[in-house]
Amino acid sequence: MSISVEEVYKIVGLWFFQDTFGWHLSELPPNETYEALTKAMLICAKGDGVLAPEERDWIIGFSAVRGMQPTLIEEMKKYEATEELEEVISRTPQAIKAKRAAIYYAIKACSADAEYHENEQAYVRKMAGLIGVSEEEVSQLEAMYFEEERLREKRVKLLFPDGLPYSS
Amino acid sequence: MSISVEEVYKIVGLWFFQDTFGWHLSELPPNETYEALTKAMLICAKGDGVLAPEERDWIIGFSAVRGMQPTLIEEMKKYEATEELEEVISRTPQAIKAKRAAIYYAIKACSADAEYHENEQAYVRKMAGLIGVSEEEVSQLEAMYFEEERLREKRVKLLFPDGLPYSS
Repeated sequence: MSISVEEVYKIVGLWFFQDTFGWHLSELPPNETYEALTKAMLICAKGDGVLAPEERDWIIGFSAVRGMQPTLIEEMKKYEATEELEEVISRTPQAIKAKRAAIYYAIKACSADAEYHENEQAYVRKMAGLIGVSEEEVSQLEAMYFEEERLREKRVKLLFPDGLPYSS
Repeated sequence: MSISVEEVYKIVGLWFFQDTFGWHLSELPPNETYEALTKAMLICAKGDGVLAPEERDWIIGFSAVRGMQPTLIEEMKKYEATEELEEVISRTPQAIKAKRAAIYYAIKACSADAEYHENEQAYVRKMAGLIGVSEEEVSQLEAMYFEEERLREKRVKLLFPDGLPYSS
C-alpha cells in the first residue's frame, strides 16, 4: 500500500501548477511537451556560448518539478544543446499554445547563473520570433521576471533575516 | 545506470530552494523538519474547522516539492490534524530557526482553498505566538502573501491570455 513514484510525481507537478498559476488541475501536461520545451530552454541558455551548470540544474529541476520523467531527466543531463532551435520547437504544438510561458521560462533559465547575457537575450528573441511572440511581449515578460526577482529578494529578507536556517 | 528516485527528489527539492530563495544548496534540509512543519500547517489550515481537500493537497504537494519522503506523504494524507499545535511545534528546532518562513507558508496553506478565514488567521497568530513571531511580523508576512498573489494574477494574464493551454 505504499505510495508510488508516479503518484509523487503527480503530487509535485500538480502543486507547481496550483502554486504558480492558481490552477487546480487533475492531470499533468501531456508528456510530449517536456522534451521539446526543456531542450529549447537549454539551447537558449547556451546562447552566450556556455551552458552554466547552474543553468542546466535550474532547467532540469524545473522540468522535474513539472513532472518530467526520470529517463528524460537523465537524457537532459547529457544533452549538448547543439540542435537547431527551429527544429526542436517544431516538435510540439505546446510551444505555440504556451508560447509566452515558454519564453518567460527561457528568460528565467538564462538568468539562473545570475547573468542574463545579451547573447542569451538574442536567443530568447530568436525563439520568440520562431513561435510568434512579439518583441514587445518579450520586453513585458522580461519586466515580469525582474519584478519577481525584486519580490524574491524582499521575501528572503523578510522570511530569513538571519540567512539560511541550517548549515548546508 | 538509471537515475534513482532519491536523486529526483533531490533535484526537485534543490530547485525549489534555488527558485524560491535564490539559494544554491548542495543538500536538502534535515529530514526531521518536514513532519513537524507539515503537521503544523495542517493544524493551522484546520483552524476554520475544516481541512479543505485543496488545503491538504497544497500542503502535501509543497512538502513533497521540498523533498518530504513518500512514507511521510502517505502519513500526512491521513493525518487528522487534531494534535496540539504547541506539541507539534516543539518537536523541531527548525520551526524556531525558520519561524517566519513557517508562518508565511502556514498563511499560504490556509489560503489554498481561496479563503483565508478569520479562524485560520487566529490559528496562524497562535502558531506565531508559540514560536516567537510578532503580530507586526505576521501582518508583514500576510502583506507579502497578498503582494505575491497580485503578481501571480498578473503572471497568468501575461503568460496565458487565452487560459489553460491544454484540456485537463
